[in-house]
Amino acid sequence: MTSSGDERALEERVARLAATVPRLDAAAERAARQRQARLIKPAGSLGLLEDLGVRLAAMAGRCPPPVPARPAVLVAAGDHGVVAQGVTPWPQAITGAMVGAMAAGLAAVNAIAGVIGAEIRLLDVGVAVPPGPAPGPPAAGPALRSASIRPGTADLAVGPAMSRQEAARALLAGADAAGELLEVGADLLVTGDMGIGNTTPAACLVAAFADRPARAVTGRGTGIDDATWELKVRVVERALARNNPDPADPLGALAGVGGLEHAALAGLLLAGAARRVPVLLDGVNANAAALVACAIAPRTAGFLIAGHRSVEPGASAALEHLGLVPLVDLRMRLGEGTGALLAVPIVRSAAAVLARMATFAEAGFEE
Amino acid sequence: MTSSGDERALEERVARLAATVPRLDAAAERAARQRQARLIKPAGSLGLLEDLGVRLAAMAGRCPPPVPARPAVLVAAGDHGVVAQGVTPWPQAITGAMVGAMAAGLAAVNAIAGVIGAEIRLLDVGVAVPPGPAPGPPAAGPALRSASIRPGTADLAVGPAMSRQEAARALLAGADAAGELLEVGADLLVTGDMGIGNTTPAACLVAAFADRPARAVTGRGTGIDDATWELKVRVVERALARNNPDPADPLGALAGVGGLEHAALAGLLLAGAARRVPVLLDGVNANAAALVACAIAPRTAGFLIAGHRSVEPGASAALEHLGLVPLVDLRMRLGEGTGALLAVPIVRSAAAVLARMATFAEAGFEE
Repeated sequence: MTSSGDERALEERVARLAATVPRLDAAAERAARQRQARLIKPAGSLGLLEDLGVRLAAMAGRCPPPVPARPAVLVAAGDHGVVAQGVTPWPQAITGAMVGAMAAGLAAVNAIAGVIGAEIRLLDVGVAVPPGPAPGPPAAGPALRSASIRPGTADLAVGPAMSRQEAARALLAGADAAGELLEVGADLLVTGDMGIGNTTPAACLVAAFADRPARAVTGRGTGIDDATWELKVRVVERALARNNPDPADPLGALAGVGGLEHAALAGLLLAGAARRVPVLLDGVNANAAALVACAIAPRTAGFLIAGHRSVEPGASAALEHLGLVPLVDLRMRLGEGTGALLAVPIVRSAAAVLARMATFAEAGFEE
Repeated sequence: MTSSGDERALEERVARLAATVPRLDAAAERAARQRQARLIKPAGSLGLLEDLGVRLAAMAGRCPPPVPARPAVLVAAGDHGVVAQGVTPWPQAITGAMVGAMAAGLAAVNAIAGVIGAEIRLLDVGVAVPPGPAPGPPAAGPALRSASIRPGTADLAVGPAMSRQEAARALLAGADAAGELLEVGADLLVTGDMGIGNTTPAACLVAAFADRPARAVTGRGTGIDDATWELKVRVVERALARNNPDPADPLGALAGVGGLEHAALAGLLLAGAARRVPVLLDGVNANAAALVACAIAPRTAGFLIAGHRSVEPGASAALEHLGLVPLVDLRMRLGEGTGALLAVPIVRSAAAVLARMATFAEAGFEE
């Protein structure tokens, strides 16, 4: 098969995945809204938890919705050629080192997933310096799967971050990893990401898909100073001018100004939605991936839940564009899935309210 | 013993409990702040989760703090004579019926505590119509303890809600119930409440202790209409004028304009703080109880965590007065402990970050 034939085949796989994303179930949604009104509580007194429960019913296609019992976070990791522009003080080798730390059970995502009871999977879609074997005794940590497309993207400030083919491959790698989790019973997917420099492509994607100026969606990432932030804004502007990402061609836009982990997460979102499984979005990288996934298959939006509001300005811009209200707002900006994991018990509780509370009639209350 | 001797003995017990509330541990707090800066994450990237972890260390008196493993919610229930004024459309019998539903495992608190893994204890400190036996098979639900002081308070719009002695007794009943939970290993206490009409005394307590006008702290409770809300504001104003609650005499103020469940929850807060165990506050009733407890023993504030922000305006006024920032804001207003329970995994995660993440040195990162 020629390279362009190969590319066509990959894009067809993406299109087939996109075509399998179903509509929300309006009947289940209606039934859930009616059930909320009959449960033994004042109408509306559980606030956003009630709306979330209704959404879960619409996603699952039944009322009450299942109470998620096996949440799983997929941490997609990749590197970014744009670090050459000086957008972050952290060296690129940190990406691989942090993936190694996660595999060894030592990172924030491990601590929080342990509390939440979520399984962790690590997916290398393009780490520049992959981690060596974990230090100490054989790892009790999560499985690390290598599906590296290339050892980091090219510098998006001077040309496309990757080819369309690479973007499609990374997306499908994320979808495959999600598919494996769903096969073994995961019923609530959580996005995670690791990649030094990845808030720069995230800002580019949000600017392109939510149609915002670079300055409004570029954040401080790990905590850069004013001068570095000004430089980062100019890099985002240059990347947008150079690659001219077109939201009507989401795969092309992703290849131009995205990252490998954004592509993989877009695949995860499509795969979850295709199976009617809710997906909890972590921070700005997941939000950017959501913009891509929803441009590829608009119905995907119905299956997304904003886990938390990252302090990155691009996160709020993306969520607003998607019409999503975050469940938690603790001024976090770490990534790894840490913010979204904190929302897992809220999602489970929203389902449990519909599934396990009695109605006034069931509880034997007089009218 | 004469009645006034009895009263003195009760107030002495309250004073002894208050005197046992310790200071926060400044050394553990410092150690935790230093450890946060060395963990494998950008400084400050976990936002409020980092501050919470530091507070947990200060409460526990060690760094890292223990990761709470046995959360328990105490639902204190009582009735309110002020319902005679028409401040709520719900009949008083609903209080007992809801306590019965909780005992049978059918209420929102049961659904959510089940997801969170929290034990539930029910404490009747003054339900007007106590629940009969649960319908259906023998209850698998939580234990209901009766420590009824009186079958509901008197109407605080026309006189004191209860006597000082009754307020002290209800407070000590809550402290005793908390003590029993701590004896069996509970390491994170959560407040719950049930009482038709209880947002009216809560508004009175917040007005008195946080020095706010009735209009600014009176809310819509279960969802009353404009006319009922105007009436409720006038009832709160009348109760304050009639009973003249003095924050310098917290037990007297509580007796004048409080509720039996507010008293019990104040006791729970004091008992938790006395044992260096963090206490998660649910909505406006818990926030009002916190104002009372902190007026009795100011050090108590150090051991309180605002679980969520109730939509009741008195909740935000009380939290501001206490200097607490809520962890979750989902526009809830049910009570029962439901909002605070959603914050339990956040508290556990904050401790787990300090206890289980590696430092850069521990993970073998080069400087």
